[in-house]
Amino acid sequence: MFNFKYYTPTKVLFGKGTELKTAELIKEFGGKKVLIHYGGGSVVRSGLLKKVTDLLDEAGISYVTLGGAVPNPHLSLVYEGIELCKKENVDFLLAVGGGSAIDSAKAIGYGVTNEGDVWDLYDYKKKAESCLPLGVVLTLAATGSEMSDSSVITKEDGLVKRGYSSDYCRPRFAILNPELTMTLPNYQTACGCTDIMMHTMERYFTNGGNMEITDSLAEGLLRTVKENALILVKDPKNYDARAEVMWAGSLSHNGLTGCGNDGGDWMTHKLEHELGGLYDVAHGAGLAAIWGSWARYVYKDCLPRFKKFAINVMGVADTGSDEETALKGIEAVEAFYREIKMPTNLKELGVNATEDDLKEMARKCALGVGGAMGSAKLLHEEDMLAIYRASLG
Amino acid sequence: MFNFKYYTPTKVLFGKGTELKTAELIKEFGGKKVLIHYGGGSVVRSGLLKKVTDLLDEAGISYVTLGGAVPNPHLSLVYEGIELCKKENVDFLLAVGGGSAIDSAKAIGYGVTNEGDVWDLYDYKKKAESCLPLGVVLTLAATGSEMSDSSVITKEDGLVKRGYSSDYCRPRFAILNPELTMTLPNYQTACGCTDIMMHTMERYFTNGGNMEITDSLAEGLLRTVKENALILVKDPKNYDARAEVMWAGSLSHNGLTGCGNDGGDWMTHKLEHELGGLYDVAHGAGLAAIWGSWARYVYKDCLPRFKKFAINVMGVADTGSDEETALKGIEAVEAFYREIKMPTNLKELGVNATEDDLKEMARKCALGVGGAMGSAKLLHEEDMLAIYRASLG
Repeated sequence: MFNFKYYTPTKVLFGKGTELKTAELIKEFGGKKVLIHYGGGSVVRSGLLKKVTDLLDEAGISYVTLGGAVPNPHLSLVYEGIELCKKENVDFLLAVGGGSAIDSAKAIGYGVTNEGDVWDLYDYKKKAESCLPLGVVLTLAATGSEMSDSSVITKEDGLVKRGYSSDYCRPRFAILNPELTMTLPNYQTACGCTDIMMHTMERYFTNGGNMEITDSLAEGLLRTVKENALILVKDPKNYDARAEVMWAGSLSHNGLTGCGNDGGDWMTHKLEHELGGLYDVAHGAGLAAIWGSWARYVYKDCLPRFKKFAINVMGVADTGSDEETALKGIEAVEAFYREIKMPTNLKELGVNATEDDLKEMARKCALGVGGAMGSAKLLHEEDMLAIYRASLG
Repeated sequence: MFNFKYYTPTKVLFGKGTELKTAELIKEFGGKKVLIHYGGGSVVRSGLLKKVTDLLDEAGISYVTLGGAVPNPHLSLVYEGIELCKKENVDFLLAVGGGSAIDSAKAIGYGVTNEGDVWDLYDYKKKAESCLPLGVVLTLAATGSEMSDSSVITKEDGLVKRGYSSDYCRPRFAILNPELTMTLPNYQTACGCTDIMMHTMERYFTNGGNMEITDSLAEGLLRTVKENALILVKDPKNYDARAEVMWAGSLSHNGLTGCGNDGGDWMTHKLEHELGGLYDVAHGAGLAAIWGSWARYVYKDCLPRFKKFAINVMGVADTGSDEETALKGIEAVEAFYREIKMPTNLKELGVNATEDDLKEMARKCALGVGGAMGSAKLLHEEDMLAIYRASLG
């Protein structure tokens, strides 16, 4: 068991109609001039953006808007946001959308308050010393960015996707109304559920310092998401299932499910980041396409936890052989992914990668993690390449 | 499922040696003149208080000290602390100890920043508008006050024990080093484990709005505390078991295990508060002594959850009869209490109450909750009296 820090200062308002509190919360946290940052047209079409700007108008809070945050959000838009904030003297950021808008807003927040090029943070060249305060109206349960310390940005030049984490960017507030996720296409819902489960699974599959209470919370969260993801495949307007998944999304990535361990494995995320940078695939689908190959490559080095996961999360019966039980757990995850229409390899993901592509991704992935990474099993470039090859399908 | 707010801004540092960060954290949160508030002599004898004052001396942070916070902390000491803070221009409170020192510090914090008599808050006459910032070095895993919004104070005049809750008093930081709890007597350890479980059980036994994810987290937490409480009976210096219980204590009362429900039942706590006010018993032991009688009185009105609890937490096999399964769960809790040497009735608690005493407690309890309270079953004064009578033993 390792020492740990737990810090989740985000004030969460959860449930129906909570978006009506947006202006009140901005005022509570001192925002006077707001940049409202969002993604595509869905928050415009749904009327949510107008609802939010109406609330700010009524409350006498000044704002500017910036749309266009895309999945795997782009550095160029971050630069644009930074300029806009400086020009308009913005002192508070409001992300209206999913992880893309939030992560993009976090990067803008860093860029406004830290000297120099914001990409230097994501390129491991320096550390942030602050960030503009940020609030969130969430429309997609997936990345957990609404409570997390992390953000992931893609630099278009070279298609490099990198994450940066610090407590400075943890949102001051997050408004979570499950109704705002009701109209999501099934594919995006399933991608979100996959991402949520992976945030906890990355923390769960470790060889260092696990705590029983953390495990029991993680296993409970994973079972809940799994069961409710299956409900949403057939009944996407089920409020309760949307709510279970949405709250799980925040808890899955705010730190709770990793307390006391070594920080987690995170190699599925790292392997997917290269996929996302190169092919612009949906993050959750990319994770699903990689995970099985990663798991089969590493499970023998992390057998007690793969066995425990199989039994306590996937409901596999103990076969008496740890390896067999663990493998049945991996198969059960893949069967679950198929049931929610997620890919289990690159072919199903729609990526036709050549051997050179795989080598390039492995090279960039190894570079990005400083040579080698992984707690379930330490992976070097050749291991990463082997996993990419196994994931071709 | 109900809308909810989730707000746990406390920065937690957990693990060995974390108390060495005390001065650093006070500085981070802006403390310049500190009141160090503690309880009895144990933090003096253990050298912890000196370690903390040495750290503050080294960091150049000015402070005054006030000891003497007792279990069921007294209003008179709160008044004394308020005067001291005003006289010394204290701008930050540091509680070193368990729930008594923390709750007493919270009340002092309210008293310093709010006009009028601080008891008016606890007497439901007005609401707080602020509180002095507060940090905690925890030496006892029990009340969860290190992350919670609540505090409980006893007014000696009339022996009235009342709680007051607001986000203002949530500690800015909490230092949780399980080693600091190693030397606790077994009785106090068991009282703490009982209190921790009860904080989640009070939230669990409701008839309104439960969420699956909240249930699964609550059940996992309860299983963990139960298992580790049994370890600590035989092996009180077991660091990992101390750590599991300590972290569970914070999570059990920071709001996590009640998200989405109607706020919980809380009648066992209310019934115990009258016991604690009148007989000055240890809070955890008082809860254990009352719970079984409460549970038998209410379980038929909250049967699905008593059944679920029996199976998922206490490991009872489903007998096919919901009532029978629920009752077996209640019996299993009482057996667990006996195993950790907790009382299961007032006699075992060492309280010989007369019928008049019981009536007086029921009257004050009903008055304190505004007539009637309870989600598992709504209890009026006559119900409270019936439960007190059943708990005599």
